[in-house]
Amino acid sequence: MIRFECDYTRGAHPRILARLVETNEEQSPGYGTDIYCMQAAEIIKNLCRQPEADVHFLVGGTLTNLTIISAILRPHEAVIAPTTGHISESETGAIEATGHKVITILPTEAGKITAEQIRAEVDIPENIHSPRPGMIFISQSTELGGVYTKTEMLAIKEVANEFGIPLFIDGARLGYALASEELSDVTLADIAEICDVFYIGGTKLGALFGEALVIVNDKLKRDFRYLMKQRGGLFAKGRLLGVQFEEFFKDGLYDEVSKYAVGLSMRVKQALNEAGIPLKYPATTNQLFFKLTDEQFAKLSEKYMLMPWVQSDGKVIARFCADWSTREEDIASFITDIGNL
Amino acid sequence: MIRFECDYTRGAHPRILARLVETNEEQSPGYGTDIYCMQAAEIIKNLCRQPEADVHFLVGGTLTNLTIISAILRPHEAVIAPTTGHISESETGAIEATGHKVITILPTEAGKITAEQIRAEVDIPENIHSPRPGMIFISQSTELGGVYTKTEMLAIKEVANEFGIPLFIDGARLGYALASEELSDVTLADIAEICDVFYIGGTKLGALFGEALVIVNDKLKRDFRYLMKQRGGLFAKGRLLGVQFEEFFKDGLYDEVSKYAVGLSMRVKQALNEAGIPLKYPATTNQLFFKLTDEQFAKLSEKYMLMPWVQSDGKVIARFCADWSTREEDIASFITDIGNL
Amino acid sequence: MIRFECDYTRGAHPRILARLVETNEEQSPGYGTDIYCMQAAEIIKNLCRQPEADVHFLVGGTLTNLTIISAILRPHEAVIAPTTGHISESETGAIEATGHKVITILPTEAGKITAEQIRAEVDIPENIHSPRPGMIFISQSTELGGVYTKTEMLAIKEVANEFGIPLFIDGARLGYALASEELSDVTLADIAEICDVFYIGGTKLGALFGEALVIVNDKLKRDFRYLMKQRGGLFAKGRLLGVQFEEFFKDGLYDEVSKYAVGLSMRVKQALNEAGIPLKYPATTNQLFFKLTDEQFAKLSEKYMLMPWVQSDGKVIARFCADWSTREEDIASFITDIGNL
Amino acid sequence: MIRFECDYTRGAHPRILARLVETNEEQSPGYGTDIYCMQAAEIIKNLCRQPEADVHFLVGGTLTNLTIISAILRPHEAVIAPTTGHISESETGAIEATGHKVITILPTEAGKITAEQIRAEVDIPENIHSPRPGMIFISQSTELGGVYTKTEMLAIKEVANEFGIPLFIDGARLGYALASEELSDVTLADIAEICDVFYIGGTKLGALFGEALVIVNDKLKRDFRYLMKQRGGLFAKGRLLGVQFEEFFKDGLYDEVSKYAVGLSMRVKQALNEAGIPLKYPATTNQLFFKLTDEQFAKLSEKYMLMPWVQSDGKVIARFCADWSTREEDIASFITDIGNL
Repeated sequence: MIRFECDYTRGAHPRILARLVETNEEQSPGYGTDIYCMQAAEIIKNLCRQPEADVHFLVGGTLTNLTIISAILRPHEAVIAPTTGHISESETGAIEATGHKVITILPTEAGKITAEQIRAEVDIPENIHSPRPGMIFISQSTELGGVYTKTEMLAIKEVANEFGIPLFIDGARLGYALASEELSDVTLADIAEICDVFYIGGTKLGALFGEALVIVNDKLKRDFRYLMKQRGGLFAKGRLLGVQFEEFFKDGLYDEVSKYAVGLSMRVKQALNEAGIPLKYPATTNQLFFKLTDEQFAKLSEKYMLMPWVQSDGKVIARFCADWSTREEDIASFITDIGNL
Repeated sequence: MIRFECDYTRGAHPRILARLVETNEEQSPGYGTDIYCMQAAEIIKNLCRQPEADVHFLVGGTLTNLTIISAILRPHEAVIAPTTGHISESETGAIEATGHKVITILPTEAGKITAEQIRAEVDIPENIHSPRPGMIFISQSTELGGVYTKTEMLAIKEVANEFGIPLFIDGARLGYALASEELSDVTLADIAEICDVFYIGGTKLGALFGEALVIVNDKLKRDFRYLMKQRGGLFAKGRLLGVQFEEFFKDGLYDEVSKYAVGLSMRVKQALNEAGIPLKYPATTNQLFFKLTDEQFAKLSEKYMLMPWVQSDGKVIARFCADWSTREEDIASFITDIGNL
Repeated sequence: MIRFECDYTRGAHPRILARLVETNEEQSPGYGTDIYCMQAAEIIKNLCRQPEADVHFLVGGTLTNLTIISAILRPHEAVIAPTTGHISESETGAIEATGHKVITILPTEAGKITAEQIRAEVDIPENIHSPRPGMIFISQSTELGGVYTKTEMLAIKEVANEFGIPLFIDGARLGYALASEELSDVTLADIAEICDVFYIGGTKLGALFGEALVIVNDKLKRDFRYLMKQRGGLFAKGRLLGVQFEEFFKDGLYDEVSKYAVGLSMRVKQALNEAGIPLKYPATTNQLFFKLTDEQFAKLSEKYMLMPWVQSDGKVIARFCADWSTREEDIASFITDIGNL
Repeated sequence: MIRFECDYTRGAHPRILARLVETNEEQSPGYGTDIYCMQAAEIIKNLCRQPEADVHFLVGGTLTNLTIISAILRPHEAVIAPTTGHISESETGAIEATGHKVITILPTEAGKITAEQIRAEVDIPENIHSPRPGMIFISQSTELGGVYTKTEMLAIKEVANEFGIPLFIDGARLGYALASEELSDVTLADIAEICDVFYIGGTKLGALFGEALVIVNDKLKRDFRYLMKQRGGLFAKGRLLGVQFEEFFKDGLYDEVSKYAVGLSMRVKQALNEAGIPLKYPATTNQLFFKLTDEQFAKLSEKYMLMPWVQSDGKVIARFCADWSTREEDIASFITDIGNL
C-alpha cells in the first residue's frame, strides 16, 4: 500500500535524520537554551529579516496554536478563523479548552476567508454580551490546499491593523504554500512582515517533528516561554528541534523539499485533469482534493491510500498529499493508474 | 565540560536511534494507530500483567501530567501532591491552568509523602467551600531521588481505595526507581497493580523523547484520546513513540539502561561518602543531592556541570544525575576529583 | 417613557417584595441551608412530581447556565445549542470560558431546533479530532419567543436518550412558555419528566432575582453545591432566594403572573395583526418580534422603549416584552398607538 | 437562638430595604446602565477622590474576586494571598478554576501578611518553571478580624509598585475595618490611593446583597464589563445594586452601621477580657475569635449560635460576629452570660 492520505507518513528527511544522529552524543543544556536552538533562531530571523523577532520551537501544531492563542487573548476575547480552520474543526476544542471562543467564518474557497468577511466580524458596535474578536487565524496554505495571495494577505492585515487585532498565520504547510505558483514572488520575509506571529511547520515538511514559532509583534512576546512550559510545549531536549530547523534553513533544504513535493503534486493534478477527474478546490500546493466515483475510489484504494474527505453529490472527495518523502516512482505509478480509470 | 546536571543532556540510546533510522522510510498511519504503537502497547501490557490496560504514548512529562489529571478530575476536584512534586513546583501552574488546585503536602523525606499525611487531607468533613481531593499524585522515583518502598506504596493505595480516589504515579524516572536497591523485588507489574494510572518515562531513560501512560483503572479510560488531542499531546507521527517503546521493552533495554545509570550513581555516592561529603537525601537511584562548600562547588564546576539546587546553611546543595548515556570514564574522572577535594 | 424592551425593567412582584420585607429581620444560616430554601425546594419537587430531584437556587441565568453545563461536561465534551441560544450569543463566551465548545445549530423557527437537527450532530462516526457532543441545550420559551411543543420536546428527549446525552432546558422564561396556548396541557411535571435538568427562571417572572435549578437525573447531582460555590453562584444570604420561590409556588403566583403577561402580549399581537404589522416569528408568549418601518419605529419610540433587535429588509425587527409588572393602561395606550400607525 | 456566627444572617438594613421598596415600580434599563448605578458610582468616586476610577457592582464576594483576578492575570501569572485568605481557603478553588495558581503565604497574625513576606515571593530570579506572581491579594479587614495599618498597607504597596504587580484589596468587611480604632485616621480615599483595585463589601454590611468594585489603576479597566458578563456577574436588574450603594454612601450610612457593629463587638471583647476568656487574635473590628472550653462553648450554645472555627489545645476557637443588624439587647444578654461562665 502506497500512502498518499497525509503528509506525515514517514519519519524525517535523510539530512535531518543524519544531523540528529551526528549530534546525538553531544551534551546540551535543556529547554531550548542550547546552541542549536540559538543558531536556528538566528538563521530564521535573518531569513525573515526580523532581527528583533522571537523564535520558539514547539513539538506540534495543535500545541503551538493553543499556546500562542491563549497567550495573546484576554479571557473575553475570541479568535476569528475559517470554519475549516485547523483550530475550528481538527483540534477537539483545544482553543475552547483554554477558555476562548472560535468565531468561525464560512470560507469562500478552499478554506480561505477574505478581508471583507473578517471586517464584518470586527467592525461591529460594542457589545459586551458577545466575546470581543481579539485575533485572526488563517492557515497558509489552508487545510484544503488553498493559498492566500500576497494581495489577499495584505488586505487581511489591513483590517487587522485597523482594528488593532493581531494576525496569526498557521504555517503547518508554509513551505508548500511558498512553493506554490501563486506565491512565486513571496518570501518568508514577506510573511513575517505581513503578520504579527506565525509558525513554520516542520512535521509535514520533513522534520521528524517540530514547529518554529516566530513572534514578530513586540507586544506579543512577553513571557512566552512561561506559557510554553505551562501548556507542556517546552521540550526538555529542546536541541533536537534546533538541530532540525538549523538543517532546514541553513542552505535551503526547506525550500527544496517544498518545491519537490509541490512539483509531484502538480504532476498528479495534470494527470487528473487529463483523466477528466474534477478537482474540488483550486490546487497549487502539495494537497489535492478531487471527486471520484465510488468505483474509482475503490479501484485506486487497492494500491493507494487516499483520504476519503467527505461525500458530495454521490461522489467521494479524496485527498492526496505529496510530501518531502514521496517517491517519484510511486507518483509515476499513480499517474498511470489514474489514466487507466 | 562534562554535564551531570540533569538526565536529558544527550539524544537517544544508540539502539533506539538505530530503530528510528531503520524504520524512517516506512509509511504509517498517524496519531498512534500504527503497528509499532500497538506492538509496544502489547509488550507493556504483558509486562504489567494488565491485559485490559490502555497504553497511550505522549511527548513529554508536563503534557502527560496535565492531560491525565484534567481528564480525571471534575472542576471542583483537586490533586494532592508533595510540595516538591513536579506538578507543584516545576510546571508553571500547568495543573491550575486546566482549572484544578494542587493541594500540597510537605514531604517527610526526599520528596516523599506518607499515607498518613494523605489521609489527613482526605479524611475530613464535607466542606463545599474547599476543593474536594480527587486524585493523589506521587513520583517514583521522586524529584529529589527518593524511592517509595512497596510497603509505602501499598499504604498510600489503601488510603486511595478507602476514599475512592485514584492514585497516579509520575514515572518520569520509573526505570531508575525500579533499579534502586529499595525496589529490588518490585516489578512493573507491581507498580501497575498498586496504582490506577502511571506513566513510564522515556525522555530521561534514553528515548529521544516520549512517555508511555498506562491506565489500569477501567473507569479512567473513557475517551482519553480526545483529551490527548485537545491538549496537544496526540503526536501526528505517533509511530515514532511506538518504535522507541517497543525497543525499550522487547528485550529488557529499559531495565538495562536503568541499572547501568544507577550503578554509576552508586559509585559516585560511595566516593562522596569516602570524601566525607554529606548527602542531602538518602540516594539509591540515578540522582544524588549533596552538600558542597562554595569552594568545592566552584572547583568541581571547572570540569563538571552540576545543578546548584538550593543554598542551605551556607553550602550549596548540588544535584548530580547519571543516565543511560553517562560515560564510565567521566564517572571515573569525577570520582577522582571528588577524592581530591 | 414606557419600557417594553425587556422583561426585567422593574423590581419584584409586590407579594414577593412583601415577603422579603416580612422576613427581613429573621436570622438564618447561610448558603441555602435555611428553612425557606428547604420549603421552596419541597414545593417545587412536589409540583415537578420528582421527590428525588435536587433543587438549587442561583442568582442569574448566565451563572446558572455556566455552572450546570461545566458541572456535567468532561473537558472534551461540547454542548449543542441553537445559534440564537442564550449561551451561544448572549453570554460573552461564558461556556467557552469554562473550557467547552458550543456546537451551534441554525434554528428552524423562532430560536427552536429540531430532534432531527440534533441527531445529525450526534449520530456521527467516532472522531477524536472534534469535541464530543455531551449535552443538549434548549430554551423554553426561546430567546425569540418560540415554544417547543410537547411532541417536539419528546422527540428531542428521544434523541438525547438514544445517545446518552443529557437534555438541559434553560427556563429563564419557563412560566411564559407554560402560559402559552401551545403548552396548554403541559405542566412543570411534564417538563421535569422530559429533561435531565432545567431551571425555572425567577428574574424575568417577578422575582427580585433568582433562578431555581432542578436536577432530575440522578447522575448529574453529585457535588453540585461545590460547583455553585466555585463559580460564585452560592448566595451567602441564600434564604432570600428560598423566600421568593416559596412565594412563587406555594399557591400559584408563578402561573398567575405568567398568564397575566402572556395575556397582555396576546392583546398586543392581535393589535399588530389588525394593523397589518407582520410578526417576525410565531408568538404565543410574552415576547413579540415584529417588523416596523423606520418611521413606525421612530413614532412608537417617542413614547415606548422597544428593542431594535436587528435590521431586516430595510425594516426594524422590534422586540416587545410584557411581564408580571406590565400595566394594563400602558398596554391599552400602546394598542391605540399601534392602531394609529 | 440568637445568631452571632456570621455577619449575614439577616436581610438588609431598613433604610436600604425601604429604598428598594420605594423604587420597586420604576422602570430601568438593564445591566447596570441605569441612573442609580451611575449616581452610586459618582458618589463612591467622590468619596475615593478618584474621579477617573471605574466602579462596577457585582452580586457576591467570590464572583467579584474571581472576575477581577482572572481579568488581570495572564495565564501564567499567579496571585499571592495569605493562606487564610478567602480565595485561598473559602472559595472552592474558584481562582484555580479560572486557570491561576494562588501562591499562599502563612500569615504572621490574624490573617495578615507583611510586605517582607510578599517581597520574598516576588524578588526572585526569573524562573519559567513556576508561575510568575502577577497580583497581590489581601483582605481588609481579614477573614480573622485582622486589620492592616496604614503603614503596613503602604509597605505592601511599595513592594507592589517596585515589582509592577497590582495590589487588590478584598473589602468584604471594609466598613468594619475603617471603623476599627487602628484605622481611625484612614478614609476610603486612602484605601483607593494605596491599592490598584478594591471592593467595598455590601453583603456583610447591610446591603441585601452586592459589592462595589473600584478599579483605580487605569491599566486594569479595559473591557471589564465583558468579563463581568462572561463570569455571570453582570446583574440584569443592575439598578438594585445601584439603589443600595447610593443609599449606603449618600449620607454616611455605611460608616454608621460599621461603627455600630464594631462598637457592639468591642463591648463583647471587653466582657471576654473581664471574664478571662482569651482572644485568639487581636480584635478591633466586628469579628472576635476566642478560646472556650468545650463546657463554656456548650453553655453559650444553648442560647447563641457561635461558629466553632477550629479546635486548638483542647479548646474551641469560637467566632463571634456583630453586624449592622445585631440587637443591643442580644449583646447585653450575651455579655451577661459571658460573665456567668
